[in-house]
Amino acid sequence: MSLTVVLCSGGIDSATLAYKVAVERKLDRLISFDYGQRHRREIEHAARIAAALGARHDVVDITALGKFLTSSSLISGGDAIPDGHYAQDNMKSTVVPNRNAIMLSIAFGIAAGAKADAVGIAVHSGDHFIYPDCRPAFIDAFRTMQQRALEDLWEVELYSPFTTTDKAGIVAEGARLGVPFHLTWSCYKGGEMHCGRCGTCVERREAFHLSGVPDPTQYEDADYWLQAIAEMKKTKGG
Amino acid sequence: MSLTVVLCSGGIDSATLAYKVAVERKLDRLISFDYGQRHRREIEHAARIAAALGARHDVVDITALGKFLTSSSLISGGDAIPDGHYAQDNMKSTVVPNRNAIMLSIAFGIAAGAKADAVGIAVHSGDHFIYPDCRPAFIDAFRTMQQRALEDLWEVELYSPFTTTDKAGIVAEGARLGVPFHLTWSCYKGGEMHCGRCGTCVERREAFHLSGVPDPTQYEDADYWLQAIAEMKKTKGG
Repeated sequence: MSLTVVLCSGGIDSATLAYKVAVERKLDRLISFDYGQRHRREIEHAARIAAALGARHDVVDITALGKFLTSSSLISGGDAIPDGHYAQDNMKSTVVPNRNAIMLSIAFGIAAGAKADAVGIAVHSGDHFIYPDCRPAFIDAFRTMQQRALEDLWEVELYSPFTTTDKAGIVAEGARLGVPFHLTWSCYKGGEMHCGRCGTCVERREAFHLSGVPDPTQYEDADYWLQAIAEMKKTKGG
Repeated sequence: MSLTVVLCSGGIDSATLAYKVAVERKLDRLISFDYGQRHRREIEHAARIAAALGARHDVVDITALGKFLTSSSLISGGDAIPDGHYAQDNMKSTVVPNRNAIMLSIAFGIAAGAKADAVGIAVHSGDHFIYPDCRPAFIDAFRTMQQRALEDLWEVELYSPFTTTDKAGIVAEGARLGVPFHLTWSCYKGGEMHCGRCGTCVERREAFHLSGVPDPTQYEDADYWLQAIAEMKKTKGG
C-alpha cells in the first residue's frame, strides 16, 4: 500500500483526494501551505478534514515568499478578487506564479524525508484553461523531474488521479467516498460565508449542480453563478 | 540581454556565476535561502558578494521547512558533519532531500513575478556523484517542467553554465572574472574559520590547487585535504 502525503487546501478536490487515499491507499498526512493567501481560513478547513480522517496535518509556512509573489490577487496585498466564471480572462489575476511547482517540490522533500511513497495532488481538468501548472503536461514533466532529483535516494511517486476528471466528476467521487463536503472551503475571498461570486464559488456551485449531489454550502449570493455562466458562454460563444 | 536571478549560497561556484552573469548578461539580483543550515554564515558571505557587485540581495526564509528535513547533517538538529572527501559514501548524510528542486522552483516564482528572463544556478560536475539534483539529467528535466508550469504566463530560462565543468574549472573562470574569492564561504561546519576537514573544505582546497589559482583561505587544518584525497583514492581504487 503506497504511503501517500496529500496536498490539501481544504477545498472539495483535495478533500476528495484525501478520502480516496485513506480508502484506497495509505494516508501519511495532509499538508497545507500558508502562503499569505487572503482565504487563509481554508487552512482551518483542511485541519477539520484531517481530524475527520484521524490523520496528521502539517501546515507549512511559506509566507516569507508572499512579498515576492504579490502580483497575484490571491495574496493579501495583491489586487481585488474578480467575480465571474473561471473560464474568463480576468481570472488570470488569480495565478500565483509557480505555485504548484513550489508546493509539490516542498511536499516531495517532506515525503522523501519521511520515507513516504507518494505525493498526491488534486489538479483537475477544470483548471487547465487558466493554470498551466494544473495541466497533464506539467504533471508528467514534474514527475520526470522528481525521478531525476531523488535518483538513488528514495523513490516518491506523483499521484494525480483527477488530472483528466472535471470538478463535477470529483464531487460525484467525493459523494461515493463519503466526503463531508460541509467541512470544505472554496471561496477565494475568505469571508465568513462563501461569497457565491468569485471564480471558485461559481465553479463549486456549478459542480454540485452538474453532479446532482446536494450542495450543503450557504452562499451570500446563491444565484449569481447562473449569470456568471451565461456571461462566460456569451464571451466564449459557447 | 537576459535579466537573470542568481541563486547564491556565498560559495565559490555561485559567486563565480554571479560575476559571470554581471559581465556577460544582466544581473537582476542574488537570492540566498535560509533553510536552517548550520553554516548559516554563508548567507553573510552572499551579502558581501552582492555588495561587491552593487546588486540586490534577497534572503528567502524557508526555515519553516527545516523541521521536516532534519535527516540531513547540514541542518541544525541533524547528524554531525562528516570529515573527508566528497566522493565518499559518508557524504550522503549531507543531502538535503530535494533541496535544488525546492530552491529552484521558488526562484522561478520570484523570477516570473519580477518579469526576469532567467534563473541561474551553479551546479557543477563535482557534485554529480552524491547529489542527483546537480546532474545534467535533473537540470534538463527541471527546465522542461518549468516550461510547462509557466506556459502562456512568462518564459523563464534555466541558466546552468557549469553543469559539465568541475570545481577547478570554476575557480579558473572565477579568477578570469575577478571574483573576490576571499569573500566566499564554503565550510559546512560554519565556525569562525574554514575547518579544512569537511567535504566542501577539502573540495575547495583541491580546486584551488588543481587550477593553480592562489587560495586566499585560512583553514584550521590546512593539511588534512591531502590525507582525505589519499583515503578516497584508496577506497575507490583510483
